[in-house]
Amino acid sequence: MAITLKTSYFSANSPNHVEFHEQSLIELIENGQIGQIIHQSDPDYQKTLTAAQTTDQLITIAPGHYLLPGFIDLHNHAPQWPQAGIALDRPLNDWLNHYTFPLEARFADLDYATAVYRDLVHTLLTNGTTSALYFGSIHNNANLKLAEICAQLGQRAFIGTVVMDNPEQTPANYRDVNSATALSKTRTFIQAIQNQHPDQLVQPVITPRFIPSCQTETLTQLGRLAQETQLRVQTHCSQSTWEHQYVLDRFGQTDSVVLQQFGLLNQHAVLAHATQLTTADQQLIKTEQAAIAHCPLSNAYFGNGVFPTKQLLDQQLKIGLGTDIAGGYSPSLYTNLQTAVTASQMRQDGVDARLPADSRGVADSRITTEEAFYLATAGGAASLAINAGQIKLGMLADFQIVQAAPQFTTLTPADQLTHLLFNHTAQQIKAVYVNGQLVHQKEQNWYDNAQ
Amino acid sequence: MAITLKTSYFSANSPNHVEFHEQSLIELIENGQIGQIIHQSDPDYQKTLTAAQTTDQLITIAPGHYLLPGFIDLHNHAPQWPQAGIALDRPLNDWLNHYTFPLEARFADLDYATAVYRDLVHTLLTNGTTSALYFGSIHNNANLKLAEICAQLGQRAFIGTVVMDNPEQTPANYRDVNSATALSKTRTFIQAIQNQHPDQLVQPVITPRFIPSCQTETLTQLGRLAQETQLRVQTHCSQSTWEHQYVLDRFGQTDSVVLQQFGLLNQHAVLAHATQLTTADQQLIKTEQAAIAHCPLSNAYFGNGVFPTKQLLDQQLKIGLGTDIAGGYSPSLYTNLQTAVTASQMRQDGVDARLPADSRGVADSRITTEEAFYLATAGGAASLAINAGQIKLGMLADFQIVQAAPQFTTLTPADQLTHLLFNHTAQQIKAVYVNGQLVHQKEQNWYDNAQ
Ligand SMILES: [Zn+2]
Ligand SMILES: [Zn+2]
Repeated sequence: MAITLKTSYFSANSPNHVEFHEQSLIELIENGQIGQIIHQSDPDYQKTLTAAQTTDQLITIAPGHYLLPGFIDLHNHAPQWPQAGIALDRPLNDWLNHYTFPLEARFADLDYATAVYRDLVHTLLTNGTTSALYFGSIHNNANLKLAEICAQLGQRAFIGTVVMDNPEQTPANYRDVNSATALSKTRTFIQAIQNQHPDQLVQPVITPRFIPSCQTETLTQLGRLAQETQLRVQTHCSQSTWEHQYVLDRFGQTDSVVLQQFGLLNQHAVLAHATQLTTADQQLIKTEQAAIAHCPLSNAYFGNGVFPTKQLLDQQLKIGLGTDIAGGYSPSLYTNLQTAVTASQMRQDGVDARLPADSRGVADSRITTEEAFYLATAGGAASLAINAGQIKLGMLADFQIVQAAPQFTTLTPADQLTHLLFNHTAQQIKAVYVNGQLVHQKEQNWYDNAQ
Repeated sequence: MAITLKTSYFSANSPNHVEFHEQSLIELIENGQIGQIIHQSDPDYQKTLTAAQTTDQLITIAPGHYLLPGFIDLHNHAPQWPQAGIALDRPLNDWLNHYTFPLEARFADLDYATAVYRDLVHTLLTNGTTSALYFGSIHNNANLKLAEICAQLGQRAFIGTVVMDNPEQTPANYRDVNSATALSKTRTFIQAIQNQHPDQLVQPVITPRFIPSCQTETLTQLGRLAQETQLRVQTHCSQSTWEHQYVLDRFGQTDSVVLQQFGLLNQHAVLAHATQLTTADQQLIKTEQAAIAHCPLSNAYFGNGVFPTKQLLDQQLKIGLGTDIAGGYSPSLYTNLQTAVTASQMRQDGVDARLPADSRGVADSRITTEEAFYLATAGGAASLAINAGQIKLGMLADFQIVQAAPQFTTLTPADQLTHLLFNHTAQQIKAVYVNGQLVHQKEQNWYDNAQ
């Protein structure tokens, strides 16, 4: 007998269209998907409700609570979790060499990895993140531990063992030995994940850290592996002025062109940041149907420019949202979607008031709350090619049940959504489902079966 | 017998100097101030600790908790609390005329005001905000209710009854009748606050909304009142391109010059936003020793540029941080200090990656976490000329006790501070003191008297 949720919900079908339905009946079927959804206006509503009420399989969400699709974190460096919110006001080199690389190197220690990854995955789930695309460290064992923890705690996860073997751009104590070991490590990791997670809740991702940290032979081999396996690929792409210029200097082409030539930019690829794309790069990414992980907080610190979200959404590129733990300090996609809206407004208005108002920023850059909500849900799902991110028949039943903050005025559905998304703490996320299973609940007062 | 807290603490004495002391003994004396502070290195430490241990007046803060000065919110529109996080993606006119003014008009209803203000003041205290400078609505009764609630809940508050009487810039159902009524309303409000709050925990502030919403005669009269009473003044100043231009068109001078000529820009004045200041304005504000309430979230939406925090801190202007509820969506000064750092980085790097890197933004704009912490504490206190915002002998005992998020690595004191400020939820603020009195505690496990 399938569980039915009686709940109001929001779901973004496109960047410009968010559906709101009150007190609908959402059936969760055994395979982890959403079965039929019956709205109050449907002729079968009362009959279905009455039938469900006679079973013990109806869950009636309490007043003031809403169901949203679970959020999808499209870029997250799991081993950087211990430094979230530390040292972001330092220059990038200092941040990398004195904080990030030494920290990632510690994940050779499996006990350390276990403690950190338990806390990270738990924290993400409590923040409503039902799927995450993770960069691990260079250590297969720690990355497999992350996979195991995701499976245990019930988070949908896409995990890469990080490849970085260019001795000029990586520290001696934290790099792959050479192309051959990087490739065999990656093959081993893929095999292990596929063996250990036949249900595919956790899946492997081919993960060259970024062009600067990889030798050319390594990029070549990973590209071939991507073609051979048709697996997902993740990497950083044109993420800062320095990085973009580094690739131009080394290859005479932009990141996007180089990645595409190596077979690493295709419909399975998720490119993080992409703040420095040329117009031709944007066109190439669209043509190849690659996706972009927009990380608005991290980009403010390391992106050297604001990602043109509005322009590229209008051009129908695939875009989702990433926390970029720990280039961004917040594990919450709420914080990141708020910042996506804020940063888009700043892109439009510019930063320097001494310039004439009409030449400070970039016209028509602001995005709406609805567009940001789309990025965190359906946009992320499209980027990962998963059947999730919307409340719709046949979609995976990945969602969060959120209590609205106290309110003192009657809100339209659109304002109610903004109120939910902008007046938010993790305390308000009362329950999280992945694959139709309850994987987190804050308290038990989010439903009211007596009703 | 005075209470003594045994605790580690951070305190910013200047923008560039944050003190950290471990397990110091902080004495709270009867008048609400901090008495002596004894550090572990002081010769009297053990003797004082032993003496305090023999009384029941020693409170030992639990491991992993830190004491910080309470935060000071230098700009907050109390009646806009119900719309926090709503409609910020709308154009300013829509936001004002369809949301803000109709909402503020509702505060003629004292029951409504009571419900909203209780929730607001409670929320601010739970977020560690021990002092706030509030714009009320135009209604004395509601504003006096806000004062009463601040006193009841124990928040230090500076409250203005808002004056707005220019029929061309205010809606018919929400404006003061004329200059005379605006003035007499303000006098009545000042008198009532001073009568009802002789302990001065709540104090009145002269509050012309901003130049556009006030008739010239009204600005003249309020300026005279400011000179006569030597009370604090708050208003908006050069807050957006439109507003700055409006004042230039009406007076042929900038906001700062006009306010100064009316007697409204002096050492008692707090100017909100100030994103559009000219260099001459900045100099005038410095000369007159007026203060600026930097509202980084709100400025992103309505400021049309990023406030040059770093430059003006270096020139030693008085600057604090404001939430600008509800031009900013977050009631938390944590969120705002995070955004102050993020926005300063964006000011430095610019927004449009198509421009050459060195002409995208404004060099040397980024501020450090320490500088943002200073703004939220000592900077706000200097702006209000209150003896608070630092942990120091003779300062008001206004502070918050914060539990650090789980951490997986040993942190330097500087990184510990950033970790506290950037990995933050209101859940971690375990206790809040104002005037030496405990006004909020989350749970009772933040101290350990057995130790
Ligand atoms: Zn990254
Ligand atoms: Zn304001």
